[in-house]
Amino acid sequence: MSIDAIATTDNSAATALTEAEIFDAHQGGKLSVTSTVPLANKRDLSIAYTPGVADVSRAIHNNPELAKTLTWAQRLVVVVSDGTAVLGLGNIGASASLPVMEGKSALFKTFGELDSIPLVLNTTDVDEIVETLVRLRPSFGAVNLEDISAPRCFELEEKLIEALDCPVMHDDQHGTAVVVLAALTNAAKVTGRELEGLRVVVSGAGAAGIAVAEILLTAGIEDVVLLDSKGVINRDRADIAADAQSKKSEMAQRSNPRGVTGGPGDALLGADVFIGVSSSKLDEEHLKLMNTDSIVFALSNPDPEVLPEVASKYAAVVATGRSDFPNQINNVLAFPGIFRGALDAGARRITPAMKLAAARAIAELAEGDLSVNYIVPSPLDPRVAPAVTAAVAAAVEAE
Amino acid sequence: MSIDAIATTDNSAATALTEAEIFDAHQGGKLSVTSTVPLANKRDLSIAYTPGVADVSRAIHNNPELAKTLTWAQRLVVVVSDGTAVLGLGNIGASASLPVMEGKSALFKTFGELDSIPLVLNTTDVDEIVETLVRLRPSFGAVNLEDISAPRCFELEEKLIEALDCPVMHDDQHGTAVVVLAALTNAAKVTGRELEGLRVVVSGAGAAGIAVAEILLTAGIEDVVLLDSKGVINRDRADIAADAQSKKSEMAQRSNPRGVTGGPGDALLGADVFIGVSSSKLDEEHLKLMNTDSIVFALSNPDPEVLPEVASKYAAVVATGRSDFPNQINNVLAFPGIFRGALDAGARRITPAMKLAAARAIAELAEGDLSVNYIVPSPLDPRVAPAVTAAVAAAVEAE
Repeated sequence: MSIDAIATTDNSAATALTEAEIFDAHQGGKLSVTSTVPLANKRDLSIAYTPGVADVSRAIHNNPELAKTLTWAQRLVVVVSDGTAVLGLGNIGASASLPVMEGKSALFKTFGELDSIPLVLNTTDVDEIVETLVRLRPSFGAVNLEDISAPRCFELEEKLIEALDCPVMHDDQHGTAVVVLAALTNAAKVTGRELEGLRVVVSGAGAAGIAVAEILLTAGIEDVVLLDSKGVINRDRADIAADAQSKKSEMAQRSNPRGVTGGPGDALLGADVFIGVSSSKLDEEHLKLMNTDSIVFALSNPDPEVLPEVASKYAAVVATGRSDFPNQINNVLAFPGIFRGALDAGARRITPAMKLAAARAIAELAEGDLSVNYIVPSPLDPRVAPAVTAAVAAAVEAE
Repeated sequence: MSIDAIATTDNSAATALTEAEIFDAHQGGKLSVTSTVPLANKRDLSIAYTPGVADVSRAIHNNPELAKTLTWAQRLVVVVSDGTAVLGLGNIGASASLPVMEGKSALFKTFGELDSIPLVLNTTDVDEIVETLVRLRPSFGAVNLEDISAPRCFELEEKLIEALDCPVMHDDQHGTAVVVLAALTNAAKVTGRELEGLRVVVSGAGAAGIAVAEILLTAGIEDVVLLDSKGVINRDRADIAADAQSKKSEMAQRSNPRGVTGGPGDALLGADVFIGVSSSKLDEEHLKLMNTDSIVFALSNPDPEVLPEVASKYAAVVATGRSDFPNQINNVLAFPGIFRGALDAGARRITPAMKLAAARAIAELAEGDLSVNYIVPSPLDPRVAPAVTAAVAAAVEAE
């Protein structure tokens, strides 16, 4: 089935969802653990449990490397959250975040063919979360951090990467960043521009905003300007300079090469690209200040910073996070393949080169059919995860 | 299919297991996580993930009780080990213990229809294990402790029961104890004795031995004598009195009403029942000291304290832990139904009454066909887990 076929035949979302339908689907949760070996007779039991299993345990005890092939741990992604920044709901706590994490684990299996379990923690202390995962290290093969509030998420991810000898990624940061880079690569092509020469404004300096700015800088875009709730991020902001160790402070040094000051209007004057990853609205007046044939990614969910019908009055390419508009920027394009590729290749870290490779693979899949309404593949396109997996694994080999 | 049919047609264990067969079955581990909801189109994604899942998270945030029905946590048993007392292998560490825990999780699903995941910890500090599970509390519904060395296992279970508002059970203690009580109930019947009047010797005062002695005392048997590697446990043993808080010290007070001293021969003189749950051998000379029509449970795996062919020269009923002899005493008869019943009934604790109810249910299933070679149902008998579940749930209601 071609992409167009998927795009045109998938009318599944046409009718509005009902509460009953949503709650029915969640009865008893969304995950199930099954045995991959038969347990129907005494022989089965003797192989999978005692006495047979003792041989396997003894073998791993003698050669710990064998745990990678003789247990499920090496291919198991734990989806970890403390429930502090869940979807648009904020700090709702670990237990209430669990349905989201179950959904994420289900996506890992469906799109990446990786086993995954949610671990939600009723502590928000960064060091306690690190300590907990260090203690559980023999149980899993990779960590997907999810819905953890900024700026704690930066510190947590950094400390976990140091503490664990396995892939760790905060998807709200890097999954988003990878898909944004893929989409922007193709949006630049569609509008006849060079990626590196774009003037980009990123609205929102939380987990996603910082990571998006970082990947764009890494990809060679020089003119990136970040906005937070107080305006443009620059070296002169006293509130930012006050915390020299923060990610915002780091970004004040690395971004904004023209030294822009002020608010959204100042940032958007002459900009080619707006990337919204906060809940702040984008005024129509500010849209008018952007260059012609501009690119607008209004990614807040469920309410975009600006509706596509308004944005398209000024912009050549408009993308959102929603499935009911064209150009859906959805993390599911990235995370299954990134983790799968990292685990397939035995990577201990998820590096910038691996993220760039993932973005390139996603962009390339859409290249043949590029248009202003098709800059990224559909999240349901079955070609995506295998392509990202292969690209990420190749990047590991190359490093 | 009747029990006899299972017993006579299951020749699956007849041929010896090969290493290749065991290791092949363990490639990639023995568990798989799947989604219980479809994820095939945009509508599916909107229900199971964003935006639909936000309604479910919001509902749980507003009413935390809803987590019990709208997530998988309430029905999820975590199988927890630190790898300090794995099968007959001893302290082989967390990672090497994982194949055993995967097997246990597979058994939970196959026999109890409960989801289960293994969590193995690379700490052996009791307080750290408690702390870890307290932090993860919103992720699961019950804790099955497994293969944790004595006497740490007693302290760990006690502290966890205090710290967590959900069922916690160390299966090596209580699963074993429940099945032993069931088997002994029927062995007494087959040999025409009253359970309460039996003289019982328990060889081994680790996790299983202490728990077996406890449940026998709770069931009304007064004359229970425990043996450890230094001999009979009694109030005069200086090494035991030295640690007044220990389980052995507690047992020195509660057991051995006739004040027996000495070694295995002194304990077995005039005994009706030998229950072996250590690796110490039982001498044929000592067997001769027991009463006629004695009962011998030689439960060490894979090497029983005495082989059935030797024991049956003196004993009327012989049981082992092995599937290749009659009367297999296997924990799988108990734990799936105990946890399932506890969770079905919403129990916060697994109480002595629930364990006695489980033992009674197991014993009753074999009652109709009782013989010296059939005192417990087969571990594969599909009637067992539902019967134990119902009995345990009824015990919860009654309390």
